[in-house]
Amino acid sequence: MASDETLVSADLLRRQLAAIFGAWGMAEDHIQTTLDIMLWADLAGIDSHGAGMMQLYHRLREQEKLTFRPEIRVVRENPATALVDGGGGLGHVPSVRAMDLACDKAATIGVGVAAVRNSHHYGAAGAYAERASDRGLIGIAMTAVARPSVVPLYGADAMFGTNPIAFAAPAKRNPPFLLDMATSTAALGKITIASRVGKPIPDGWAVDPDGRSITDPDAALSHRRLTPLGSTRAMGGHKGYGLAMMVEVLCTTLSGAQFGALRERRDPDAARHDVGHFFLAIDPDAFREEGAFEADLDEMIDALRATRAADPAEPVQVAGDPEVRARAERQRNGIPLSARLAQELRDIATAAGAPILIGS
Amino acid sequence: MASDETLVSADLLRRQLAAIFGAWGMAEDHIQTTLDIMLWADLAGIDSHGAGMMQLYHRLREQEKLTFRPEIRVVRENPATALVDGGGGLGHVPSVRAMDLACDKAATIGVGVAAVRNSHHYGAAGAYAERASDRGLIGIAMTAVARPSVVPLYGADAMFGTNPIAFAAPAKRNPPFLLDMATSTAALGKITIASRVGKPIPDGWAVDPDGRSITDPDAALSHRRLTPLGSTRAMGGHKGYGLAMMVEVLCTTLSGAQFGALRERRDPDAARHDVGHFFLAIDPDAFREEGAFEADLDEMIDALRATRAADPAEPVQVAGDPEVRARAERQRNGIPLSARLAQELRDIATAAGAPILIGS
Repeated sequence: MASDETLVSADLLRRQLAAIFGAWGMAEDHIQTTLDIMLWADLAGIDSHGAGMMQLYHRLREQEKLTFRPEIRVVRENPATALVDGGGGLGHVPSVRAMDLACDKAATIGVGVAAVRNSHHYGAAGAYAERASDRGLIGIAMTAVARPSVVPLYGADAMFGTNPIAFAAPAKRNPPFLLDMATSTAALGKITIASRVGKPIPDGWAVDPDGRSITDPDAALSHRRLTPLGSTRAMGGHKGYGLAMMVEVLCTTLSGAQFGALRERRDPDAARHDVGHFFLAIDPDAFREEGAFEADLDEMIDALRATRAADPAEPVQVAGDPEVRARAERQRNGIPLSARLAQELRDIATAAGAPILIGS
Repeated sequence: MASDETLVSADLLRRQLAAIFGAWGMAEDHIQTTLDIMLWADLAGIDSHGAGMMQLYHRLREQEKLTFRPEIRVVRENPATALVDGGGGLGHVPSVRAMDLACDKAATIGVGVAAVRNSHHYGAAGAYAERASDRGLIGIAMTAVARPSVVPLYGADAMFGTNPIAFAAPAKRNPPFLLDMATSTAALGKITIASRVGKPIPDGWAVDPDGRSITDPDAALSHRRLTPLGSTRAMGGHKGYGLAMMVEVLCTTLSGAQFGALRERRDPDAARHDVGHFFLAIDPDAFREEGAFEADLDEMIDALRATRAADPAEPVQVAGDPEVRARAERQRNGIPLSARLAQELRDIATAAGAPILIGS
């Protein structure tokens, strides 16, 4: 634990955030659903997507780009698909609704797809994918992002968000295989960390407005131009760019939400951001005998963990392992909040007229 | 065109390959379906996945790992899902059957998923995804690979194939958005090209049996240990590894096909390879008003092409652009065959007792 951090229990952090959302006028059931997803990230060690987002939510509320009393509606539905309108609020509640609809449909007919439009930031994509694997289903969750920060290969301007892909599949002996990845080379959060400790970022993570690679983290944060996964043509940057576009198409073009780069260009002060998400669930039992999928996945996970390592001190892991470790540790010891984040939360609570529950 | 290349028309190449498949005992309808997919690759400039595969098919036939008279069956089916058994033959025919089933289901109920087991090499993934976009649907195609060639991050042994992902979405004014990518940093074919011209490969494409990066293309081909997309931890190699595993799970664990790395370990001389594939189709009309998806995708494609470029001589492209250019050029001028490939095809025809149609 860094010296400027304090540990708070998940329960205390949850009550502090609930008090703020309540003061913002959010309905009690929406608060609890939103916090299920946010605390999932804080417990899993994905600090950038839980309580660390409150500052953005606070700012979006002040700019009147978010309502905290959204009307969430299923606007189209058939036995295998659904389209959900988020009502212009945060993405957590409509996304839980959408993923649960996709899972219900998959449990009935083998597969379910749900798209969400008119939404906003939804936290960590992995939380939704894992809702599916918790029910014995394969889950996929993707989201577009309000503000572009990733350049296409050869481009000098950002056209996509970090457009994450999450994929979860249930095993039996092992925790689920849980992939949760931005389609950029690095996440913005990693550059923020480099900036805080005053270290250069690796060549190839970010470019300046001329499209040239830069290693100064502060310049990278102000230019907001990350490379797509792969970074350069030789190292596969066209693939990360293609994946970012695939996510954008499934989240915005399919749902009817806005393509952020075009909105920013046409109307940077647009009243709404209209972010889109995509959810897919597949029931392995529609393809395999009951239990066969989980048994085979356990075998695959075991074989991967047993792969001969290039460096014995650095064993091969499976996606989801770091989150499982973080959750066990944080449930036991608490969630570390930096002094700065703790102060931010207290300031936001004060501005909202909510009680301050996290000590200084 | 390189000096050792000859140009053959798609029609002549098709007739040569048909003569070989016929001599191998393949049924006429299987021949035509297989060649639809193979010629798609040769015309699109994906030389590694069309006629260039005949040498492998020939060898697998000699090793009795492939039947050319497979019984292809739909073994499970519901209104949104299907499981197809490839009968131990090449993957093209069961995969066309599976993708067409997924598309039929999507056109009826909004989404369709089809998995294939007991199959083998299926050519270029993009050909299947484009079958969906040709019908106005979003298409996804993935495949596992018989022999592992990609190491997990931190691993020194190959555990996955190049496990490609193809994604296609229909536009109106523009050709479809068509992503077709291996989840490794580079494809094996690129290393073969470097070997042929005697040039080192970029640092980070391949490793030796100790897991150390190597740049000698011949060593890379003999060690057969490619890195996952991203290559190193700092540049996102855990993401490419995660994507490769996602593809493996959807193609083998879901269908009940074999996880190649385990089969190779347990029984390197296994009578069958039992390769699996995965296909998904989504109907945009289940979510949007008719034509709205295509119009919005056209806007996105146009905006991406208009992105300010880092280097004006290297404009931003959209996935699928190179294939569209190659197809136009090759339909006009013919498909370039290297002297070596042309000789290989003549030798295979001779061995099969088929007529030689391609001149020397």
